[in-house]
Amino acid sequence: MSIVVVGTVAYDSIITTSGSIDEALGGSATYFSVASSIFTKTKIVATVGEDFSETYFSLFKGRGIDIAGIDVVPGRTFRWKGKYSKNLNERTTLETQLNVLKKVKVKLPASYTTCSILFLANIDPEIQLEVLSQMKKTKFIAMDTMNFWITSKAKKLKELLHQVDLLCINEEEAELLSGEDNIVKSCKKILMMGPSVVIIKRGSYGAILFHDIHICSMPAYPLENVMDPTGAGDSFAGGFLGYLSTLKRFSINDLRKALAYGNMVASYTVEDFSVNKLVSIHFEDIESRYELFKSITAIC
Amino acid sequence: MSIVVVGTVAYDSIITTSGSIDEALGGSATYFSVASSIFTKTKIVATVGEDFSETYFSLFKGRGIDIAGIDVVPGRTFRWKGKYSKNLNERTTLETQLNVLKKVKVKLPASYTTCSILFLANIDPEIQLEVLSQMKKTKFIAMDTMNFWITSKAKKLKELLHQVDLLCINEEEAELLSGEDNIVKSCKKILMMGPSVVIIKRGSYGAILFHDIHICSMPAYPLENVMDPTGAGDSFAGGFLGYLSTLKRFSINDLRKALAYGNMVASYTVEDFSVNKLVSIHFEDIESRYELFKSITAIC
Repeated sequence: MSIVVVGTVAYDSIITTSGSIDEALGGSATYFSVASSIFTKTKIVATVGEDFSETYFSLFKGRGIDIAGIDVVPGRTFRWKGKYSKNLNERTTLETQLNVLKKVKVKLPASYTTCSILFLANIDPEIQLEVLSQMKKTKFIAMDTMNFWITSKAKKLKELLHQVDLLCINEEEAELLSGEDNIVKSCKKILMMGPSVVIIKRGSYGAILFHDIHICSMPAYPLENVMDPTGAGDSFAGGFLGYLSTLKRFSINDLRKALAYGNMVASYTVEDFSVNKLVSIHFEDIESRYELFKSITAIC
Repeated sequence: MSIVVVGTVAYDSIITTSGSIDEALGGSATYFSVASSIFTKTKIVATVGEDFSETYFSLFKGRGIDIAGIDVVPGRTFRWKGKYSKNLNERTTLETQLNVLKKVKVKLPASYTTCSILFLANIDPEIQLEVLSQMKKTKFIAMDTMNFWITSKAKKLKELLHQVDLLCINEEEAELLSGEDNIVKSCKKILMMGPSVVIIKRGSYGAILFHDIHICSMPAYPLENVMDPTGAGDSFAGGFLGYLSTLKRFSINDLRKALAYGNMVASYTVEDFSVNKLVSIHFEDIESRYELFKSITAIC
């Protein structure tokens, strides 16, 4: 099954204790699609400016990623600049230039509308709804969101939640959305808002998935060198949905495996800036780390 | 194999969002021994004041815990008062009354000195060393410590680390001790300081163990109702060493299992104040939660 992702394609400038990069390829749709393309055909929906580099279009195309849905409009591409704390657990936004994101119009190419899996990355819920309304044959719809939308567009967000299968957010966002401090209580409440699966991304602590009466919890892959956590969440989602796209139905055991695959993909992302590491790995690398991870987390 | 624990037996007053308790049974040796006594005979070394309640002595004795090493001296028992943040991740000390802890003299009963397993809970490294020097046939020595000792008694602590098999601390303490932000690097450094096993306690995120070339990582058991995190670390250690005490040798798979048992025991501790929940459970309860935990963390 092929996947459509709607989100941002951006230029990121990032400072961590390991170094810095300036105007490197970033954005939620970028990280997601580079990750999911390890598993399946992926189609991007995003808006960039006329300054967007041909090299990056080639990078996408080289991975079989469909860029027909990337709208190139007059103006500059979205830019984000951020700095991470020493232990990489906190980040400060130094600069946000919305640029072309101020005038996003979403009209999906016809070839996109019949895809089976849709990922609505963290953008305005109104755009997420608009994309969703154009899809005709989706079997699985997943979404991300953030505190800003939970607070400012609560009504649209709830409308959206009723239509998606999976919500993938972090702990703080889950608390804000549910009004519960406890992660189990919080996710039980969110499951009642619409999604049949909720995943809480816990950064260097891994991820936990709730589905029906099932809970799957796993730590992160222990890494000795983390360079830049940017894009971990989106590439996690890319790995998760990428793995699911290779299956016909999704049992709870498939969701477990998908969670682990998402985890492994994200562990590669953070080992370098931008998508540098991610573009250098193959499915075999993920498989071998997956096997190691199984032995690290095994309980007899 | 029986276990000796040296640590505190205290009166705790605690405030969490779920409620509060006043002068309830607490202290590292209390939580550890109540946990480890589910698995094996445990002997406490601690100092209390003349005000220490006979009821609590009976509680220990009722669990087969040897209290011959609890020294009752003139004065009041150690008291600690603390308050937890809403999400229970941070705590503030409101009051510490050292009382009888100012005049601790450690002389182990003869029957203690031939025990096989020793747990040096978080106390002054000089006392930890003094206890250790009196033990004659230990097969496995574990210890805890905290930032205060890492900073103020670095030399004694390093002397001690050369003599122990296991160090069991939290992430912040590991960073301070090793000077490394990354948990893998940090634990590799600590393994070179003496212990052959390092466990990092991650609270509601579980625990990770390093031994030789092996890493075992697991999340915490997902709980819907956490009342009071006090004593989680010590009862984790009690469950970990308690399980090991039932074995003759410790393979890496045994350490994995022990980590999960420690995790399960701690999950019961935090479901109520003081040792209230812990004294109400049996080995069968731990076993059934252990089985559930295996299914929650399984990766196919």
